[in-house]
Amino acid sequence: MKILIVGAVAGGASAAARARRLDEYAEIILFERGEAPSFANCGLPYYVGGVIAERDKLLVAPKQRLVERYNLDVRTRTEVVRIDRTRKLVVARDLSTGTEYEESYDNLILSPGASPLRPPIPGADLASAYTIRDLSDADRLHQAVGGARTAVIIGAGFIGLEMAENLVHRGITTTVVEMADQILPPWDPEMVTPVADHLRDRGVRLQLSDAAKAIEATDAGLRVELNSGGTLDTDFVVMSVGVRPENQLAVDAGLEVGTRGGIRVNASMQTNDPDIYAVGDVVEVTHFVDGSPIQIPLGGPANRQGRIAADHIFGRDSKYRGTQGTAIVGVLDMTVAMTGLSEKALMAANLSFEKIYIHPAHHAGYYPGAEQLTLKLLFAPDTGRILGAEIVGGAGVDKRIDVLAIAIQAGMTVYDLEEAELAYAPQYGSAKDPINMAGFVAAGVLRDDQPVTHVAQLTSDGADAEPYVLDVRTAGEFEAGHIEGATNIPLESLRARLDEVPRDRPIVAYCKVGQRGYSATRILAQHGFAVRNLSGGYTTYLADASHEQQSVEA
Amino acid sequence: MKILIVGAVAGGASAAARARRLDEYAEIILFERGEAPSFANCGLPYYVGGVIAERDKLLVAPKQRLVERYNLDVRTRTEVVRIDRTRKLVVARDLSTGTEYEESYDNLILSPGASPLRPPIPGADLASAYTIRDLSDADRLHQAVGGARTAVIIGAGFIGLEMAENLVHRGITTTVVEMADQILPPWDPEMVTPVADHLRDRGVRLQLSDAAKAIEATDAGLRVELNSGGTLDTDFVVMSVGVRPENQLAVDAGLEVGTRGGIRVNASMQTNDPDIYAVGDVVEVTHFVDGSPIQIPLGGPANRQGRIAADHIFGRDSKYRGTQGTAIVGVLDMTVAMTGLSEKALMAANLSFEKIYIHPAHHAGYYPGAEQLTLKLLFAPDTGRILGAEIVGGAGVDKRIDVLAIAIQAGMTVYDLEEAELAYAPQYGSAKDPINMAGFVAAGVLRDDQPVTHVAQLTSDGADAEPYVLDVRTAGEFEAGHIEGATNIPLESLRARLDEVPRDRPIVAYCKVGQRGYSATRILAQHGFAVRNLSGGYTTYLADASHEQQSVEA
Repeated sequence: MKILIVGAVAGGASAAARARRLDEYAEIILFERGEAPSFANCGLPYYVGGVIAERDKLLVAPKQRLVERYNLDVRTRTEVVRIDRTRKLVVARDLSTGTEYEESYDNLILSPGASPLRPPIPGADLASAYTIRDLSDADRLHQAVGGARTAVIIGAGFIGLEMAENLVHRGITTTVVEMADQILPPWDPEMVTPVADHLRDRGVRLQLSDAAKAIEATDAGLRVELNSGGTLDTDFVVMSVGVRPENQLAVDAGLEVGTRGGIRVNASMQTNDPDIYAVGDVVEVTHFVDGSPIQIPLGGPANRQGRIAADHIFGRDSKYRGTQGTAIVGVLDMTVAMTGLSEKALMAANLSFEKIYIHPAHHAGYYPGAEQLTLKLLFAPDTGRILGAEIVGGAGVDKRIDVLAIAIQAGMTVYDLEEAELAYAPQYGSAKDPINMAGFVAAGVLRDDQPVTHVAQLTSDGADAEPYVLDVRTAGEFEAGHIEGATNIPLESLRARLDEVPRDRPIVAYCKVGQRGYSATRILAQHGFAVRNLSGGYTTYLADASHEQQSVEA
Repeated sequence: MKILIVGAVAGGASAAARARRLDEYAEIILFERGEAPSFANCGLPYYVGGVIAERDKLLVAPKQRLVERYNLDVRTRTEVVRIDRTRKLVVARDLSTGTEYEESYDNLILSPGASPLRPPIPGADLASAYTIRDLSDADRLHQAVGGARTAVIIGAGFIGLEMAENLVHRGITTTVVEMADQILPPWDPEMVTPVADHLRDRGVRLQLSDAAKAIEATDAGLRVELNSGGTLDTDFVVMSVGVRPENQLAVDAGLEVGTRGGIRVNASMQTNDPDIYAVGDVVEVTHFVDGSPIQIPLGGPANRQGRIAADHIFGRDSKYRGTQGTAIVGVLDMTVAMTGLSEKALMAANLSFEKIYIHPAHHAGYYPGAEQLTLKLLFAPDTGRILGAEIVGGAGVDKRIDVLAIAIQAGMTVYDLEEAELAYAPQYGSAKDPINMAGFVAAGVLRDDQPVTHVAQLTSDGADAEPYVLDVRTAGEFEAGHIEGATNIPLESLRARLDEVPRDRPIVAYCKVGQRGYSATRILAQHGFAVRNLSGGYTTYLADASHEQQSVEA
């Protein structure tokens, strides 16, 4: 058995190690265009930022280890330039010498990854306009950062924000330009508004709903011209506007690719040529939740796909279950995470859903250090099946997204979350954990115990009459800020003041986060009022409203 | 509808709030023997330790809020002394005045909790021998701690160790006496050995396999006489040897209780009298994993049971699914957590199981601050269903135990853990998260890719011949300490030195944590050797071996 693997990071390296474990006698050759196999690509921004101080740390599985432990033939600085499917061989080029040679295979695994897009604008190829993908990119950026005072990042996705965090660490004045009217475009906008505010608080300038139309060299560095008309002078530019699957080799060989360029594979990671597998960022996967074809570049799935391809080569019935889009990003002490489908993805797919927001503390409020998090849960209106979740906050966000990721994998419902038995001691969680709370609130919606409404529906609640907006917080909270037109009746006096609430209009009750609003909703509903609770309360309202202002920032 | 609730903490308070939300018009009376309803009982040790500085923080839902928000009739300092099931009424005693009166019910919910056991030894009732259950206990201990220099804690369970942590915070020299030969008796011994070592490192003296046989007052404080013959002079004693369900009221009323005294209830939390419910630490529950009757005092389940009882009273088909024993305890910057059944519980229940140990970092090793954790996974040999897990370490332990708790709730298998898509960025996790790793290793055992063995089997591996113990770490690691009788062949040179390995004996391979041992196992198995990997490697070996020494400590 002779296996060739193209690309020795994540999926490729995993496939190689697994193949060797399954067959001590197979010939396994790993081609890597770069200088090192199996480097920590997710660590590159932190190396640039100096958080990871030693470059060697990025070499997760050095070449020598792959050779000695796994008996692999690792050929770095070697690019596979062509596949000959008929003769079952590839043409490889030694990048040091330019020499090309053929290498035959029984099975071929493609793991070339995805390459950063460069915006199609003048100057995108200037020396100080960087993308970041591999170690040499990181080296160049690491050097550029030394001595620089200003930077412009184009694109406010994961990599853009991770770079922003790291440049802030290095004391560099940073502007992030983003074409969308929000940061982190895969997330729903109201969830990331607090993150944008936090970035601004930490000195990052956000230029949303704007784009670079040209980059030019100046005496002092670079000047970025914006669509909005302004210009930004900067020492260097980082372009992080997304990635494109490196499919050329596959396309040239006649392998099928999807509409967004990802190589099409079956559940065993086979391409339309059964002797050729593809894994990692280069493939189109099936979304676990709705079964749609999608491309999501993620390290975990890449590793598992590599393993599955190797399994299948050795006759095992190992199957990839799809990608559910679990992702997390740290942004200057905040954490932003999601799993499953976002609201915008559900809307785009025309799937019906319900949603709720909660803002619980990450552990018992009576124990010092509790941090508030915001959790948005999306679920099926009929079955209660969990469709997606987004969580933003500080400590404890990563825990809850992983719990929900597993719940989605298991096909669990919001009713299951009500019953989840999670670990509780006051420094870790709550007797009613945020996961339970999300279940209670969502199940309350489905059982009609707690009809909810949302900020967007506030002015037109599906009824003819404009809703009566009832603020059930304290007078002090009301005075400090409230929804325009709202009336304040604190929850504690609501029962005594029911006659002040109109019976001819729909009522929307709200409090700070939704809990008192829920109690008010229960009271009013049982007294015959048509009432809904504003999910997430004033906290979600503020996140949603401030979103409208983002695009007018200069 | 008139509902009486006995006990206003956790389950009782939850039942009351839920009942009010379901019925605005019900009469709901909450009897609480203590001075305050709904206090944070899990916070008491931290109040004693000064970590929770303000006593008011412990009042989670003050009486006034329960009255104003929930329109509850809260009667503190009032003890229910008798139930008359025929007349459907209780007799309540106002503890301030001694007055007794009757109160009728349509439904009665018992949530009296469990009371700390006092060891049946002379002096256990001395003034400076404390138990900790409610606010007044905490107040007394809080006062005792001021000015004290030494303390003896009897019982090394949760509460005992939380008290030890807090007394260390207060600078008090603390000795913990425990009858078992390990701390945290519900855990498997090899898992808590590192925790015991950590306690000793932090100055806590552990007196294992020993017990107090008497406490006597001295001029300076107290003297504890030990079974082992020694004595301990101390300023005060904390007794934390377990709890007993407060079942007297129920027993007197003829309600059924289990063999360990817990009130028997059905899935809707009804006792054998359908008008009387019981919730929280006083009830016997069904273990979620094996269906056995059990008593586990936990805050989360108590809260959910209260909710379920209220639901059922109002005609809802709400059912408790059983308790799976998810528990967590912080011990001076270490975290110890479990969910499902322990190995000793599986042994006691005579259930068949497999087990594995891993010692991964809690996030990517290349990102600074990675802390090693130890994870033990117990699973069914036939289906791979997850039966239980224990995790010990620092950061990230709480996350993984919650993920596994949900996985157990969902009935997931180790194969599901292989495919789990968890959130990965280097400061939060790994592309192959500890959860995935546990899945890989456990599934490898079931697929016979990686036969494992354990420390206890080292000297008698089921075979006639004594195993050849092969240390595949580096020469340097081997020299620094190894299993007695082991031979060192580093993994990297194993393929070249196969002829040194005997073919007539079973081989046990090991490394530091199990990964290189796995690779060695794969190599040797494919070359025809009968080989097993020592699960958890030398790290687990040390934890298991040092366990034997605990009991001889003076």
